[in-house]
Amino acid sequence: MKKLINDPSNVLADSLVGVAAAHPELRVDHVNRIIYRGTPTAGKVAVISGGGSGHEPLHGGFVGLGMLDAAIAGEVFTSPTPDQVQEATKGADGGAGVLHIVKNYTGDVMNFEMAAELAEADAGVRVETVVTNDDVAVEDSTWTAGRRGVGITVLLEKIVGAAAEEGRDLAAVAEIGRRVNASGRSMGMALTSCTVPSAGKPTFDLPDDMMEMGVGIHGEPGRHRVPLASASDIAAQLVEPILSDLDFTGGPTIVMLNGMGGSPLIELYLMYGEVARILESSGITIARNLVGNYITSLDMAGCSVTVLKADDDLLRLWDAPVNTAGLRWGI
Amino acid sequence: MKKLINDPSNVLADSLVGVAAAHPELRVDHVNRIIYRGTPTAGKVAVISGGGSGHEPLHGGFVGLGMLDAAIAGEVFTSPTPDQVQEATKGADGGAGVLHIVKNYTGDVMNFEMAAELAEADAGVRVETVVTNDDVAVEDSTWTAGRRGVGITVLLEKIVGAAAEEGRDLAAVAEIGRRVNASGRSMGMALTSCTVPSAGKPTFDLPDDMMEMGVGIHGEPGRHRVPLASASDIAAQLVEPILSDLDFTGGPTIVMLNGMGGSPLIELYLMYGEVARILESSGITIARNLVGNYITSLDMAGCSVTVLKADDDLLRLWDAPVNTAGLRWGI
Repeated sequence: MKKLINDPSNVLADSLVGVAAAHPELRVDHVNRIIYRGTPTAGKVAVISGGGSGHEPLHGGFVGLGMLDAAIAGEVFTSPTPDQVQEATKGADGGAGVLHIVKNYTGDVMNFEMAAELAEADAGVRVETVVTNDDVAVEDSTWTAGRRGVGITVLLEKIVGAAAEEGRDLAAVAEIGRRVNASGRSMGMALTSCTVPSAGKPTFDLPDDMMEMGVGIHGEPGRHRVPLASASDIAAQLVEPILSDLDFTGGPTIVMLNGMGGSPLIELYLMYGEVARILESSGITIARNLVGNYITSLDMAGCSVTVLKADDDLLRLWDAPVNTAGLRWGI
Repeated sequence: MKKLINDPSNVLADSLVGVAAAHPELRVDHVNRIIYRGTPTAGKVAVISGGGSGHEPLHGGFVGLGMLDAAIAGEVFTSPTPDQVQEATKGADGGAGVLHIVKNYTGDVMNFEMAAELAEADAGVRVETVVTNDDVAVEDSTWTAGRRGVGITVLLEKIVGAAAEEGRDLAAVAEIGRRVNASGRSMGMALTSCTVPSAGKPTFDLPDDMMEMGVGIHGEPGRHRVPLASASDIAAQLVEPILSDLDFTGGPTIVMLNGMGGSPLIELYLMYGEVARILESSGITIARNLVGNYITSLDMAGCSVTVLKADDDLLRLWDAPVNTAGLRWGI
């Protein structure tokens, strides 16, 4: 295993030291592994998220004005504990309640739910939850009942963060979150496995001439293994299941071409060109786009496509100022 | 070779199609492989750069307000031709002259110099050139006489772009560029090789238990191969040669922890923590920092450190608004 780490069992803690050093504008709770935007804003709905580490910049890189108020970091590919989430829920609340954004993985859903109950019982914090489940690849998967929550989480955190910033109440913010999730679909693929530091070896074996279509963000099996193909073939194989699942014509869309962590930007832009061409020839209007590494799987090579059916309200929230390490504009 | 590409000999052209699709605010000349910010701003010094592709977001990702007016893309790891550079020089000139920012590689230096002469002779464009040579690893290298130009190029393009934006003249903008280059030092390392698409196999072999210290951004040999070490050891091995080469105490610095393309963000932040600790314990004040993939080597795993001795003027230029795909703030 070749990684820029010290003790493989200490990667998260060590990395948070670097986050704190690089971003003095954030407040890092090293005990509970929580990255806060600062102190809570009185009267503003707090938007928080979290999950296993290894998907950076998600979620910690999205803490800041216009996006998340706090991010809770579990160990690599492991849900944060209910205690951690409860601590962040109480720590981020500014009196207007807290929205939990949870990717649909069994451990995450359970731990966030338990934390919500504890924070409500213990400190009277009102919590609403949005569970993302946008991955069209498989219905159930390792660690998931139902569809997995993947790329839409990035777009949702941006849009919901903007809604909270402009003062909408908890129910309204949660409603926008659910609408974004319901209007978004994703599909991913891997050229290589990732390697979890504490495991020390690749999560799965993938022959040199094969790729995994529909892979999960932890290297969970996808739909099928198929022979390596060209970027244009890969784009077609990613886009087709998305378009079969939801009609994206008749309005603007936001499209993300996301890297899994190990694929360079020159390839991600190339893939975006292929994806955009297919979408446009299918009568879909791309109003906004995002190309780069946003929800990753450590050092996995590969990419995913997310398409979100938008409208004027969602586009306005998308364009609103955001000031985080991972996404920044209008500021 | 596992890559998200079509024809290996067409990667650059295909990727520029994606850049154009993703960034309608930019103007892409697909024939000459030039990314323009738009039409020239009359009376503003134009700042342009370029080089071999495979280092994205450098340079194309830095085209926009407050940074580059144009970027010229050569084939992967290959200098753009004099014709390409001449075309960009003429195309970006707003009448106040053009600054060429060139990384010190023999082909790049020669081709930019020829292009400057042609643009001056042909269209009367005034050109000044800043050649970066911040890499402390080796004195001469494959494709280089003298030190290689690496990470400082990113910081320099930002600072010089801001100086041009505020209306300084060509001589003044070039002078700031030379001052930044003279005040910056870098050192890089690789855990793995990269693979050039047209070659189809890794550029060099690196045993599983070894790493290359002082590697160049094309996989050129560095100072020495040493056994794999911990992040804190690697940080020490990167920082020591930088601090031995220039005194960074007594004023503010800007520090970049740059990923080579294949190392995930969780590791880059971890490395930044180690580097910041060493710098601060050496009496160096870090006023600003940048952590992420900015000057890459395709899919190489590894990182580099750049330290720039700054002052109030440079910090102000650093903080000035920038609006590009790869760096964005204050806007």
